[in-house]
Amino acid sequence: MYDDEYFMQHALREASYAFEAEEVPIGAIVVIDNKIIARGHNQVERLNDPTAHAEIIALTSAFNYIGAKYLPDACLYVTVEPCLMCCGAMYWSKIGRIVYGAADEKNGYKHITGEKWPFHPKTQLTGGVLEEEAVSLMRAFFKARRR
Amino acid sequence: MYDDEYFMQHALREASYAFEAEEVPIGAIVVIDNKIIARGHNQVERLNDPTAHAEIIALTSAFNYIGAKYLPDACLYVTVEPCLMCCGAMYWSKIGRIVYGAADEKNGYKHITGEKWPFHPKTQLTGGVLEEEAVSLMRAFFKARRR
Repeated sequence: MYDDEYFMQHALREASYAFEAEEVPIGAIVVIDNKIIARGHNQVERLNDPTAHAEIIALTSAFNYIGAKYLPDACLYVTVEPCLMCCGAMYWSKIGRIVYGAADEKNGYKHITGEKWPFHPKTQLTGGVLEEEAVSLMRAFFKARRR
Repeated sequence: MYDDEYFMQHALREASYAFEAEEVPIGAIVVIDNKIIARGHNQVERLNDPTAHAEIIALTSAFNYIGAKYLPDACLYVTVEPCLMCCGAMYWSKIGRIVYGAADEKNGYKHITGEKWPFHPKTQLTGGVLEEEAVSLMRAFFKARRR
Protein backbone atom coordinates (compact mmCIF):
# COMPACT_ATOMS: atom_id res chain seq x y z
CA MET A 1 0.00 0.00 0.00
CA TYR A 2 1.59 3.21 -1.17
CA ASP A 3 0.69 6.50 0.39
CA ASP A 4 1.15 10.22 -0.11
CA GLU A 5 4.33 10.44 1.96
CA TYR A 6 5.94 7.66 -0.06
CA PHE A 7 5.27 9.46 -3.34
CA MET A 8 6.17 12.86 -1.93
CA GLN A 9 9.59 11.42 -1.03
CA HIS A 10 10.05 10.76 -4.75
CA ALA A 11 9.05 14.33 -5.56
CA LEU A 12 11.54 15.53 -2.93
CA ARG A 13 14.25 13.48 -4.60
CA GLU A 14 13.47 15.32 -7.84
CA ALA A 15 13.69 18.60 -5.90
CA SER A 16 17.14 17.57 -4.64
CA TYR A 17 18.31 17.15 -8.26
CA ALA A 18 17.27 20.76 -8.87
CA PHE A 19 19.13 21.81 -5.72
CA GLU A 20 22.31 20.10 -6.90
CA ALA A 21 21.99 21.91 -10.23
CA GLU A 22 21.64 25.26 -8.41
CA GLU A 23 18.00 25.59 -9.44
CA VAL A 24 15.18 26.56 -7.06
CA PRO A 25 14.64 23.10 -5.50
CA ILE A 26 11.16 22.04 -6.53
CA GLY A 27 10.30 18.57 -7.80
CA ALA A 28 7.20 16.84 -9.12
CA ILE A 29 6.05 13.38 -10.14
CA VAL A 30 2.90 12.02 -11.79
CA VAL A 31 1.41 8.76 -10.53
CA ILE A 32 -1.21 6.48 -12.10
CA ASP A 33 -2.29 3.25 -10.39
CA ASN A 34 0.50 3.55 -7.81
CA LYS A 35 3.10 3.75 -10.60
CA ILE A 36 5.28 6.79 -11.23
CA ILE A 37 4.83 7.59 -14.93
CA ALA A 38 6.60 10.96 -15.09
CA ARG A 39 9.11 13.06 -13.17
CA GLY A 40 10.32 16.63 -13.37
CA HIS A 41 12.42 19.15 -11.52
CA ASN A 42 12.80 22.86 -11.96
CA GLN A 43 15.10 23.67 -14.92
CA VAL A 44 14.51 27.41 -15.34
CA GLU A 45 18.23 28.29 -15.33
CA ARG A 46 19.43 25.37 -17.39
CA LEU A 47 16.86 25.92 -20.13
CA ASN A 48 16.86 29.72 -19.86
CA ASP A 49 13.09 29.43 -19.69
CA PRO A 50 11.13 30.76 -16.70
CA THR A 51 8.26 28.40 -17.56
CA ALA A 52 10.39 25.24 -17.12
CA HIS A 53 8.85 24.43 -13.75
CA ALA A 54 8.87 20.94 -12.26
CA GLU A 55 5.12 20.52 -12.74
CA ILE A 56 5.16 21.56 -16.42
CA ILE A 57 8.02 19.17 -17.20
CA ALA A 58 6.31 16.31 -15.34
CA LEU A 59 2.94 16.99 -17.01
CA THR A 60 4.39 17.17 -20.52
CA SER A 61 6.24 13.93 -19.86
CA ALA A 62 2.99 12.35 -18.62
CA PHE A 63 1.05 13.41 -21.74
CA ASN A 64 3.79 11.87 -23.87
CA TYR A 65 3.84 8.68 -21.82
CA ILE A 66 0.12 7.99 -21.95
CA GLY A 67 -0.35 9.46 -25.44
CA ALA A 68 -3.35 11.50 -24.37
CA LYS A 69 -3.92 15.06 -23.26
CA TYR A 70 -6.04 14.49 -20.17
CA LEU A 71 -4.98 12.88 -16.89
CA PRO A 72 -8.19 12.26 -14.92
CA ASP A 73 -6.80 9.09 -13.32
CA ALA A 74 -3.47 10.62 -12.33
CA CYS A 75 -2.15 12.29 -9.21
CA LEU A 76 0.57 14.94 -9.37
CA TYR A 77 2.85 15.33 -6.36
CA VAL A 78 4.80 18.56 -6.11
CA THR A 79 7.00 19.70 -3.23
CA VAL A 80 5.76 23.31 -3.20
CA GLU A 81 2.36 24.91 -3.87
CA PRO A 82 2.01 25.46 -7.64
CA CYS A 83 2.23 28.93 -9.18
CA LEU A 84 -0.56 30.43 -11.30
CA MET A 85 0.94 29.08 -14.53
CA CYS A 86 1.24 25.51 -13.22
CA CYS A 87 -2.22 25.78 -11.71
CA GLY A 88 -3.54 26.70 -15.18
CA ALA A 89 -1.64 23.82 -16.78
CA MET A 90 -3.21 21.42 -14.28
CA TYR A 91 -6.64 22.84 -15.07
CA TRP A 92 -6.15 22.00 -18.75
CA SER A 93 -4.83 18.51 -17.91
CA LYS A 94 -8.02 17.65 -15.96
CA ILE A 95 -5.74 15.88 -13.50
CA GLY A 96 -7.56 13.77 -10.93
CA ARG A 97 -5.64 14.87 -7.85
CA ILE A 98 -2.91 17.28 -6.79
CA VAL A 99 -0.81 16.83 -3.64
CA TYR A 100 1.66 19.53 -2.64
CA GLY A 101 4.10 19.97 0.22
CA ALA A 102 4.87 23.50 1.39
CA ALA A 103 2.61 26.51 0.88
CA ASP A 104 4.17 29.39 -1.11
CA GLU A 105 2.77 32.70 0.03
CA LYS A 106 4.73 34.70 -2.52
CA ASN A 107 4.38 32.73 -5.74
CA GLY A 108 1.67 30.17 -4.98
CA TYR A 109 -1.53 30.40 -6.99
CA LYS A 110 -3.69 31.11 -3.96
CA HIS A 111 -2.48 34.66 -3.48
CA ILE A 112 -4.06 35.47 -6.87
CA THR A 113 -7.04 33.13 -7.07
CA GLY A 114 -8.16 33.68 -3.48
CA GLU A 115 -11.40 31.79 -2.86
CA LYS A 116 -11.92 30.82 -6.53
CA TRP A 117 -11.32 27.21 -7.55
CA PRO A 118 -8.94 27.35 -10.50
CA PHE A 119 -8.69 23.60 -11.19
CA HIS A 120 -11.06 21.24 -12.99
CA PRO A 121 -14.23 20.76 -10.92
CA LYS A 122 -13.39 17.09 -10.33
CA THR A 123 -9.76 17.66 -9.28
CA GLN A 124 -8.99 16.86 -5.65
CA LEU A 125 -6.38 18.82 -3.71
CA THR A 126 -4.26 18.01 -0.65
CA GLY A 127 -1.59 20.31 0.81
CA GLY A 128 1.01 20.02 3.56
CA VAL A 129 2.42 16.54 2.84
CA LEU A 130 6.07 16.43 4.04
CA GLU A 131 5.87 20.20 4.22
CA GLU A 132 8.88 20.56 6.51
CA GLU A 133 11.19 18.64 4.19
CA ALA A 134 10.19 20.87 1.26
CA VAL A 135 10.64 24.04 3.33
CA SER A 136 14.08 22.89 4.58
CA LEU A 137 15.28 22.36 1.02
CA MET A 138 14.00 25.77 -0.11
CA ARG A 139 15.54 27.52 2.92
CA ALA A 140 18.91 25.82 2.39
CA PHE A 141 18.87 26.94 -1.25
CA PHE A 142 18.07 30.59 -0.59
CA LYS A 143 20.45 30.73 2.36
CA ALA A 144 23.28 29.46 0.15
CA ARG A 145 22.48 32.05 -2.53
CA ARG A 146 22.53 34.94 -0.10
CA ARG A 147 26.14 34.22 0.82
CA MET B 1 5.85 53.12 -38.31
CA TYR B 2 4.41 49.79 -37.20
CA ASP B 3 1.35 49.64 -35.08
CA ASP B 4 -0.69 47.20 -33.05
CA GLU B 5 -3.03 46.32 -35.91
CA TYR B 6 -0.11 45.51 -38.17
CA PHE B 7 1.36 43.07 -35.64
CA MET B 8 -2.02 41.63 -34.73
CA GLN B 9 -2.49 40.76 -38.41
CA HIS B 10 0.61 38.59 -38.05
CA ALA B 11 -0.81 36.94 -34.94
CA LEU B 12 -4.04 36.34 -36.87
CA ARG B 13 -2.07 34.69 -39.64
CA GLU B 14 -0.64 32.32 -37.00
CA ALA B 15 -4.20 31.68 -35.80
CA SER B 16 -5.20 30.78 -39.37
CA TYR B 17 -2.47 28.12 -39.43
CA ALA B 18 -4.06 26.58 -36.33
CA PHE B 19 -7.47 26.76 -38.03
CA GLU B 20 -6.15 24.92 -41.08
CA ALA B 21 -4.72 22.23 -38.79
CA GLU B 22 -8.13 21.87 -37.08
CA GLU B 23 -6.83 23.35 -33.85
CA VAL B 24 -8.64 26.06 -31.87
CA PRO B 25 -7.52 29.07 -33.97
CA ILE B 26 -5.36 31.18 -31.68
CA GLY B 27 -2.06 32.71 -32.73
CA ALA B 28 0.67 34.74 -31.02
CA ILE B 29 3.83 36.59 -31.93
CA VAL B 30 6.57 38.26 -29.89
CA VAL B 31 7.99 41.59 -31.07
CA ILE B 32 11.12 43.46 -29.99
CA ASP B 33 12.10 46.78 -31.61
CA ASN B 34 9.42 46.41 -34.27
CA LYS B 35 10.83 43.02 -35.27
CA ILE B 36 8.96 39.74 -34.93
CA ILE B 37 11.31 37.42 -33.04
CA ALA B 38 8.95 34.51 -32.32
CA ARG B 39 5.68 33.03 -33.52
CA GLY B 40 3.32 30.36 -32.25
CA HIS B 41 -0.06 28.86 -32.89
CA ASN B 42 -2.13 26.52 -30.84
CA GLN B 43 -0.92 22.90 -31.23
CA VAL B 44 -2.81 21.13 -28.46
CA GLU B 45 -4.15 18.36 -30.70
CA ARG B 46 -1.02 17.85 -32.74
CA LEU B 47 1.22 17.56 -29.69
CA ASN B 48 -1.37 15.80 -27.52
CA ASP B 49 -0.54 18.42 -24.90
CA PRO B 50 -3.21 20.76 -23.50
CA THR B 51 -0.48 23.24 -22.50
CA ALA B 52 0.72 23.76 -26.10
CA HIS B 53 -0.99 27.12 -26.42
CA ALA B 54 0.10 29.75 -28.95
CA GLU B 55 1.50 32.04 -26.24
CA ILE B 56 3.59 29.31 -24.58
CA ILE B 57 5.08 28.25 -27.91
CA ALA B 58 5.85 31.87 -28.87
CA LEU B 59 7.35 32.64 -25.45
CA THR B 60 9.58 29.56 -25.42
CA SER B 61 10.73 30.42 -28.92
CA ALA B 62 11.47 33.99 -27.79
CA PHE B 63 13.54 32.82 -24.78
CA ASN B 64 15.55 30.61 -27.12
CA TYR B 65 16.00 33.39 -29.66
CA ILE B 66 17.31 36.00 -27.24
CA GLY B 67 19.09 33.50 -24.99
CA ALA B 68 17.62 34.99 -21.85
CA LYS B 69 14.66 34.21 -19.63
CA TYR B 70 13.15 37.67 -19.27
CA LEU B 71 11.48 39.76 -21.97
CA PRO B 72 11.06 43.27 -20.51
CA ASP B 73 11.55 44.93 -23.91
CA ALA B 74 9.17 42.65 -25.78
CA CYS B 75 5.50 42.84 -26.69
CA LEU B 76 3.41 39.69 -27.11
CA TYR B 77 0.43 39.87 -29.47
CA VAL B 78 -2.19 37.16 -29.09
CA THR B 79 -5.51 36.92 -30.91
CA VAL B 80 -7.55 35.90 -27.85
CA GLU B 81 -7.35 36.82 -24.15
CA PRO B 82 -4.79 34.53 -22.46
CA CYS B 83 -5.88 31.74 -20.11
CA LEU B 84 -4.66 31.48 -16.52
CA MET B 85 -1.70 29.30 -17.49
CA CYS B 86 -0.49 31.67 -20.21
CA CYS B 87 -1.07 34.61 -17.91
CA GLY B 88 1.22 32.93 -15.36
CA ALA B 89 3.84 32.23 -18.02
CA MET B 90 3.80 35.91 -19.00
CA TYR B 91 4.19 36.87 -15.36
CA TRP B 92 7.38 34.81 -15.15
CA SER B 93 8.68 36.24 -18.44
CA LYS B 94 8.41 39.83 -17.14
CA ILE B 95 7.21 40.74 -20.62
CA GLY B 96 6.98 44.47 -21.27
CA ARG B 97 3.59 44.54 -22.95
CA ILE B 98 0.72 42.24 -23.87
CA VAL B 99 -1.79 43.02 -26.63
CA TYR B 100 -4.75 40.72 -27.19
CA GLY B 101 -7.68 40.67 -29.58
CA ALA B 102 -10.92 39.09 -28.40
CA ALA B 103 -11.97 38.68 -24.78
CA ASP B 104 -12.61 35.08 -23.66
CA GLU B 105 -15.26 34.98 -20.98
CA LYS B 106 -15.01 31.23 -20.52
CA ASN B 107 -11.27 30.53 -20.48
CA GLY B 108 -9.68 33.96 -20.20
CA TYR B 109 -7.66 34.66 -17.06
CA LYS B 110 -9.94 37.48 -15.91
CA HIS B 111 -12.77 35.20 -14.85
CA ILE B 112 -10.41 33.78 -12.20
CA THR B 113 -8.17 36.70 -11.29
CA GLY B 114 -10.99 39.27 -11.15
CA GLU B 115 -9.61 42.61 -10.02
CA LYS B 116 -6.15 41.24 -9.15
CA TRP B 117 -3.23 42.10 -11.46
CA PRO B 118 -1.59 38.76 -12.29
CA PHE B 119 1.25 40.07 -14.50
CA HIS B 120 4.55 41.67 -13.59
CA PRO B 121 3.95 45.14 -12.10
CA LYS B 122 5.65 46.81 -15.09
CA THR B 123 3.76 44.87 -17.78
CA GLN B 124 1.38 46.95 -19.89
CA LEU B 125 -1.85 45.48 -21.26
CA THR B 126 -4.07 46.37 -24.23
CA GLY B 127 -7.17 44.41 -25.26
CA GLY B 128 -9.57 44.55 -28.20
CA VAL B 129 -7.13 44.98 -31.11
CA LEU B 130 -8.72 43.46 -34.26
CA GLU B 131 -11.16 41.78 -31.93
CA GLU B 132 -13.74 41.08 -34.63
CA GLU B 133 -11.27 39.22 -36.83
CA ALA B 134 -10.27 36.98 -33.92
CA VAL B 135 -13.90 36.35 -32.98
CA SER B 136 -14.82 35.50 -36.60
CA LEU B 137 -12.08 32.91 -36.79
CA MET B 138 -13.10 31.32 -33.47
CA ARG B 139 -16.80 31.27 -34.47
CA ALA B 140 -16.01 29.68 -37.83
CA PHE B 141 -13.98 27.00 -36.08
CA PHE B 142 -16.60 26.04 -33.52
CA LYS B 143 -19.41 26.23 -36.09
CA ALA B 144 -17.51 23.78 -38.34
CA ARG B 145 -16.95 21.39 -35.42
CA ARG B 146 -20.63 21.34 -34.45
CA ARG B 147 -21.59 19.96 -37.85
